[in-house]
Amino acid sequence: RRRGIPEAVFAPGKTVEEVAALVGTALDTTGRAIVTRLGSEDAAVIEAGVEGEATYHERARCLVVHGGGFEPPEISATVGIVTGGTADREPAGEAAVIAREIGASVERVEDVGVANLTRVVDQLDRLREADVLIVAAGREGALPTVVAGLVPAPVIALPVSSGYGFGSDGEAALLGTLQSCTVLSTVNVDAGFVAGAQAGLIARSIAAARP
Amino acid sequence: RRRGIPEAVFAPGKTVEEVAALVGTALDTTGRAIVTRLGSEDAAVIEAGVEGEATYHERARCLVVHGGGFEPPEISATVGIVTGGTADREPAGEAAVIAREIGASVERVEDVGVANLTRVVDQLDRLREADVLIVAAGREGALPTVVAGLVPAPVIALPVSSGYGFGSDGEAALLGTLQSCTVLSTVNVDAGFVAGAQAGLIARSIAAARP
Amino acid sequence: RRRGIPEAVFAPGKTVEEVAALVGTALDTTGRAIVTRLGSEDAAVIEAGVEGEATYHERARCLVVHGGGFEPPEISATVGIVTGGTADREPAGEAAVIAREIGASVERVEDVGVANLTRVVDQLDRLREADVLIVAAGREGALPTVVAGLVPAPVIALPVSSGYGFGSDGEAALLGTLQSCTVLSTVNVDAGFVAGAQAGLIARSIAAARP
Amino acid sequence: RRRGIPEAVFAPGKTVEEVAALVGTALDTTGRAIVTRLGSEDAAVIEAGVEGEATYHERARCLVVHGGGFEPPEISATVGIVTGGTADREPAGEAAVIAREIGASVERVEDVGVANLTRVVDQLDRLREADVLIVAAGREGALPTVVAGLVPAPVIALPVSSGYGFGSDGEAALLGTLQSCTVLSTVNVDAGFVAGAQAGLIARSIAAARP
Amino acid sequence: RRRGIPEAVFAPGKTVEEVAALVGTALDTTGRAIVTRLGSEDAAVIEAGVEGEATYHERARCLVVHGGGFEPPEISATVGIVTGGTADREPAGEAAVIAREIGASVERVEDVGVANLTRVVDQLDRLREADVLIVAAGREGALPTVVAGLVPAPVIALPVSSGYGFGSDGEAALLGTLQSCTVLSTVNVDAGFVAGAQAGLIARSIAAARP
Amino acid sequence: RRRGIPEAVFAPGKTVEEVAALVGTALDTTGRAIVTRLGSEDAAVIEAGVEGEATYHERARCLVVHGGGFEPPEISATVGIVTGGTADREPAGEAAVIAREIGASVERVEDVGVANLTRVVDQLDRLREADVLIVAAGREGALPTVVAGLVPAPVIALPVSSGYGFGSDGEAALLGTLQSCTVLSTVNVDAGFVAGAQAGLIARSIAAARP
Amino acid sequence: RRRGIPEAVFAPGKTVEEVAALVGTALDTTGRAIVTRLGSEDAAVIEAGVEGEATYHERARCLVVHGGGFEPPEISATVGIVTGGTADREPAGEAAVIAREIGASVERVEDVGVANLTRVVDQLDRLREADVLIVAAGREGALPTVVAGLVPAPVIALPVSSGYGFGSDGEAALLGTLQSCTVLSTVNVDAGFVAGAQAGLIARSIAAARP
Amino acid sequence: RRRGIPEAVFAPGKTVEEVAALVGTALDTTGRAIVTRLGSEDAAVIEAGVEGEATYHERARCLVVHGGGFEPPEISATVGIVTGGTADREPAGEAAVIAREIGASVERVEDVGVANLTRVVDQLDRLREADVLIVAAGREGALPTVVAGLVPAPVIALPVSSGYGFGSDGEAALLGTLQSCTVLSTVNVDAGFVAGAQAGLIARSIAAARP
Ligand SMILES: Nc1ncnc2c1ncn2[C@@H]1O[C@H](COP(=O)(O)O)[C@@H](O)[C@H]1O
Ligand SMILES: Nc1ncnc2c1ncn2[C@@H]1O[C@H](COP(=O)(O)O)[C@@H](O)[C@H]1O
Ligand SMILES: Nc1ncnc2c1ncn2[C@@H]1O[C@H](COP(=O)(O)O)[C@@H](O)[C@H]1O
Ligand SMILES: Nc1ncnc2c1ncn2[C@@H]1O[C@H](COP(=O)(O)O)[C@@H](O)[C@H]1O
Ligand SMILES: [Mg+2]
Ligand SMILES: [Mg+2]
Ligand SMILES: [Mg+2]
Ligand SMILES: [Mg+2]
Ligand SMILES: [Mg+2]
Ligand SMILES: [Mg+2]
Ligand SMILES: [Mg+2]
Ligand SMILES: [Mg+2]
Repeated sequence: RRRGIPEAVFAPGKTVEEVAALVGTALDTTGRAIVTRLGSEDAAVIEAGVEGEATYHERARCLVVHGGGFEPPEISATVGIVTGGTADREPAGEAAVIAREIGASVERVEDVGVANLTRVVDQLDRLREADVLIVAAGREGALPTVVAGLVPAPVIALPVSSGYGFGSDGEAALLGTLQSCTVLSTVNVDAGFVAGAQAGLIARSIAAARP
Repeated sequence: RRRGIPEAVFAPGKTVEEVAALVGTALDTTGRAIVTRLGSEDAAVIEAGVEGEATYHERARCLVVHGGGFEPPEISATVGIVTGGTADREPAGEAAVIAREIGASVERVEDVGVANLTRVVDQLDRLREADVLIVAAGREGALPTVVAGLVPAPVIALPVSSGYGFGSDGEAALLGTLQSCTVLSTVNVDAGFVAGAQAGLIARSIAAARP
Repeated sequence: RRRGIPEAVFAPGKTVEEVAALVGTALDTTGRAIVTRLGSEDAAVIEAGVEGEATYHERARCLVVHGGGFEPPEISATVGIVTGGTADREPAGEAAVIAREIGASVERVEDVGVANLTRVVDQLDRLREADVLIVAAGREGALPTVVAGLVPAPVIALPVSSGYGFGSDGEAALLGTLQSCTVLSTVNVDAGFVAGAQAGLIARSIAAARP
Repeated sequence: RRRGIPEAVFAPGKTVEEVAALVGTALDTTGRAIVTRLGSEDAAVIEAGVEGEATYHERARCLVVHGGGFEPPEISATVGIVTGGTADREPAGEAAVIAREIGASVERVEDVGVANLTRVVDQLDRLREADVLIVAAGREGALPTVVAGLVPAPVIALPVSSGYGFGSDGEAALLGTLQSCTVLSTVNVDAGFVAGAQAGLIARSIAAARP
Repeated sequence: RRRGIPEAVFAPGKTVEEVAALVGTALDTTGRAIVTRLGSEDAAVIEAGVEGEATYHERARCLVVHGGGFEPPEISATVGIVTGGTADREPAGEAAVIAREIGASVERVEDVGVANLTRVVDQLDRLREADVLIVAAGREGALPTVVAGLVPAPVIALPVSSGYGFGSDGEAALLGTLQSCTVLSTVNVDAGFVAGAQAGLIARSIAAARP
Repeated sequence: RRRGIPEAVFAPGKTVEEVAALVGTALDTTGRAIVTRLGSEDAAVIEAGVEGEATYHERARCLVVHGGGFEPPEISATVGIVTGGTADREPAGEAAVIAREIGASVERVEDVGVANLTRVVDQLDRLREADVLIVAAGREGALPTVVAGLVPAPVIALPVSSGYGFGSDGEAALLGTLQSCTVLSTVNVDAGFVAGAQAGLIARSIAAARP
Repeated sequence: RRRGIPEAVFAPGKTVEEVAALVGTALDTTGRAIVTRLGSEDAAVIEAGVEGEATYHERARCLVVHGGGFEPPEISATVGIVTGGTADREPAGEAAVIAREIGASVERVEDVGVANLTRVVDQLDRLREADVLIVAAGREGALPTVVAGLVPAPVIALPVSSGYGFGSDGEAALLGTLQSCTVLSTVNVDAGFVAGAQAGLIARSIAAARP
Repeated sequence: RRRGIPEAVFAPGKTVEEVAALVGTALDTTGRAIVTRLGSEDAAVIEAGVEGEATYHERARCLVVHGGGFEPPEISATVGIVTGGTADREPAGEAAVIAREIGASVERVEDVGVANLTRVVDQLDRLREADVLIVAAGREGALPTVVAGLVPAPVIALPVSSGYGFGSDGEAALLGTLQSCTVLSTVNVDAGFVAGAQAGLIARSIAAARP
């Protein structure tokens, strides 16, 4: 429920036992469990204790467990996810996991930071095929603006906390997406889950309209 | 072009003559001109000087001019626009103008602030019919969160600068949308144009998918 | 003294020995000792060393010790304490401990976050019975506004630091309570002690007026 | 309704005509109209046009109109309102108007700023008679803390924007009330209406308990 | 002196008479006078009263006066100045005036905002000919990063205060230049004078090295 | 030299070896060494290795070493140092050490926080005897304002980072001293060294004037 | 009283009539009246209406009136007041007026900004003669640090709001004085009154010690 | 490529293995590898595993590896690097490493903080010989302003996070460089890599112009 957005457990500040218990409940009630921001060691402990098919996405730091009879949804729409560099991979990965669990196809376009424009331009065809795009915004947060100027689909910016110095808590990136001179909407810093879910909602609306 | 989002002239900081000239150019090149944040007196001056059908939206403070042969686009999708109180009407109105110029149907739900929940609940049926929702976030910015918990469609929050005291430049409202405990994406404070255009892009994608 | 508000020891930055010594002094002089923000291990050490009846409130992270002849006050008024989710439990628990030590009856209403309005509405009767309410404000801080729109009693908002990204130190929640479009007053982020004591003062004034 | 708090029209950003119309509606539906932050000239225009008994509170910049048959509520409880200097008078006055319209007795204690402690101490007896206190917090915002250390009743701090330089938008005063080393709750900067209404709610609860 | 940077009078906060007097002194002592941030009406008053050749740069809001025998310096190096849109023209124009008064050739590249990448790419040859570049950074401040990724010369970013909402005082743009993922240095928001002078210093060092 | 203010080593970020080396150099060149913000274990290591008379001030976290022939200065003036609570003791202690090393007599007045005014008033005679006062400003930072209203001597405020929630990094306290409605000057948060040295400079000027 | 600091009327936000009335009261009760931040036209109106000797300090924007039998205090100590440029003159002038009214000799050192170090160094002898120094801190706020490194007397920094762009509300200057690598204390931005009064208190203590 | 700026690996957040792998790739593709912000223990591990000539710069915390046939570039221009104290050495060292790897001569001027002006003045001849200067800005950030007032070459300010209290994250230093009353440009806090690369670009342009 909650609009078809799968519930996810936010691991920080919880003990492994607490997370495991919440995973159990989720499996019992919805047939599926997702945990975000989970370290690989904790993931192993939980995987060992659950029944069903568990997948740990290392770079996304997410654990997904499908219970016995769970049938993952599938929707005929594509979410494109674009990153500028390595620092963007964790939140972008989190977004990918959620979008996929909503049932969307996910297309990744990686390492096309604005410091080297040809990389973005080389990927234009792939970018233009997505029904909705999530674009990570690390450092100065310019990538979503550049991408939104090149594609017709709606763009959701995902600001990422990276770098150091003034504005390095993701404030520079967030302000860059709020002040963008193109049209886009944004989520909070590092909020991969929210970006993935919002893109998933849009993809589902499009898929539902498809004949 | 620009993804089918109509160009708009941002009036503040420009003389009436400058705005009028930009309106002329827009009419010549695209058959349509939109001006945002325009006072009623300036609007009258410009209306007097243009050819074509001019409409001034007083509460939205927007002027729209359609040139002689201009055929407004029409798309078979609905943008719902929700406000909590009078202070939200200008940015929400700006969003409505843009969404309509993109061709979407616009459904307004007004004055359903969270201080009186029954008002929101009374409008649930209308809210659930929209393909995508823009929800204004004045004062503490709680309304988008409440609405997004009640409807299946994607929600775009539009923080509004209102009130006084600490956080009254719209910062409270913006933070409220970024920290929302439901799924939504946001635009900058008072950015009605961006909210309307982003909702319009989503509406168009849905309409395009319709058989 | 101090208006009948029990003195409490704030544990962070103190060694177990220092806390234990302060507990001893408090017991000797007032017959009661309260420690806030105390870990369970430190609590066990202190409990082992004191005379009197010690209770450790795990979720509130508070230790309460009543000395031999201590007679806890009792006042005929009820403080309602409302939370939206698990992250709110520690500060809300701290508030509950203090309100109870002042002598009030405490009524807890848990996990009624605004993302699912029916949960709040289902509890309306219980909410309306309280003489004064403390409402936790996590994430975007909308819950106190929603509750204050539904009940006649005075509401004290208790902003909670939770989530991540911009505004996650409780700033979003605090601004949300300061800019609330209903009538309420607020305490600082995570200030459960202050919220509990202020609610206790109000409850005591009401109880004192009762014939 | 709305918990017995009278509706008030917030004048800034509205034309005299708009305010007058809202006053008319309020008189028709509730028998009373209150306007806050209204200049004396606008007040005169509105007074000239209304039926009923109109009072303009110059220092509070509030207009109150009681329609023909309106019977003002009366409750047997006292709200004390304390200011440190001239700059505090407008928000404190606004609070007084609202508390009185809720029906409370209001007791003013003026110009007892902390730079001269004897002034506060000289008023102790009057301060201790109030059922609930509103204490204005101008400049460094120390007065509510000092008063709350001297009286048993609940204290609501009302931070005031005054002075100049860093923190002069009321931020210093607000932070001072949030970090207070005594127990109190606070409202937003210059929010006299909210302070008066919250104090009125508490006073009413106390009065209702009185036999 | 002062490293060959011409002295300039900063007009805001000065009366026309004060500015005129400072212009007179500058002409007498250095043979030249520059005034920044001067309105056209004040410029006309001053022009009328000085001897020498006066030029008012309307878009830059700068007045330059060369006294009778003044011989403007000339250096064999080029400063490129790049803007994204109309809002950047005033600070960029100020920079151009100063760079030219230092003796550099100035090459303007206008309206190449990142929302439409082809515009920047079309100008690559001109951009690559400059010895040093000033790139204006309005809105999200992405343009300097994009340009610095395309040219070999040193880039000085000039953040511009434009737009509205959160970060619109130029903070978004400034953070964008500080967090840039390419190599560049920055000046303060709207500091056209400083950008022009710093670029002029670099151009002069290069010119001095030329045989 | 440096105006007679003793050089001090700031320990954080340095290894024990680095601190020990700097202590050695200071002893050789000036006959004295002072280390601030030093843990007791590191202090023990350094004490063991130096010649001369070493004193570790535990609560101030300062180590003072006087070399063989060092003759401590003595000046006939008194610095009063006032604290509101335990959290103020470390920075106040640091100030005391420095003032004493400059040669002043130091008079401590402890735990006279504004939540209980009688404590301050009880100490008035001692406060009035000091030639210059340092007053710690924890939490809301009201104490320096209250003291400066009671004594004729110059007051230097020393804001202290304590508490939790919004403004707890000492910002509330600092703003409180900057916005004080009495006359005082301030130093940075936790800057005990600076407060002690500035008070020492004033004390020395007064002592030098004494016949 | 109030430590011998003369009361001053802060003009902003008061009508001429209100200021005139307060001047009258001050003259009656203390024999002297000081008004700060007063425009020249308002000053002329007030001067015309008072008895006694009135002096309007144009650059300081202060009015001083000495009643018939008033005998201005005189103390044998000197306050040095140092400015870097024209923007510093108003707050520095305000400080000078207050220091002189406390009875100190005032020595002004003007236009010795750090961009041209020789100017400061040329004035070293005059700087070293003062008993206490007020040093204005405009723009980046470096001047107090440089001066405090050159003179033995206590230095009070007076940050000034000047310039434009990020930090131009005096925040850069204030942070510069708080983070100074020499010993000094500071007052709030533009707080000439406070700087002058604090320097006057120190001067008086020194003068009182003189035999 | 990338303008001749050598690629560098930013170590924080990467495992030793990841850094080692990136070093290997860099050596293979460009003949050189640079790692910034690397601890000495990790550096030893990596040095042990690489072929080629490895140098670990301890104070700069940078590792540089030149592969077998790598020929370091050499350019006939000098970058001066100025620090005020020990806290500046790490970022200044990082800048030095990068400038040298670009091929410039590097001249270091150390410990010339503004609290003791004679130290800067004593080094004037060396400062004036540099073609471009990087000046570290610790604490209040005054040093770049002072140096830029003394030398004709372009100055790049490098703000450093040091000290404690308000503004100690480098904000004071950054604001000081942005508000400087001389002409300079700045990089982000602690951005030694960027300062070194920008100075290297300028040095290279000058060297390229040399006959
Ligand atoms: N000075 C004030 N401060 C806070 N709320 C106010 C004030 N004056 C009126 N209100 C409330 O603001 C709402 C009216 O706002 P508006 O629709 O903008 O006139 C009502 O709910 C009033 O109770
Ligand atoms: N627009 C500007 N931005 C920065 N500095 C300026 C500007 N215009 C003039 N200046 C400099 O500011 C100083 C003059 O300031 P003022 O004394 O206030 O006129 C001179 O050093 C000028 O070089
Ligand atoms: N420029 C000023 N800055 C700070 N305090 C001032 C200033 N001028 C007057 N005062 C003080 O402000 C108080 C008067 O404030 P007010 O009642 O608003 O006129 C008196 O205590 C004065 O000593
Ligand atoms: N200390 C540093 N500061 C700024 N940029 C750096 C630093 N070290 C490496 N880089 C740049 O950061 C990028 C490498 O980032 P990463 O992929 O995170 O290792 C390359 O473009 C480097 O030029
Ligand atoms: Mg990075
Ligand atoms: Mg409003
Ligand atoms: Mg959470
Ligand atoms: Mg005032
Ligand atoms: Mg704009
Ligand atoms: Mg504490
Ligand atoms: Mg200026
Ligand atoms: Mg340091």
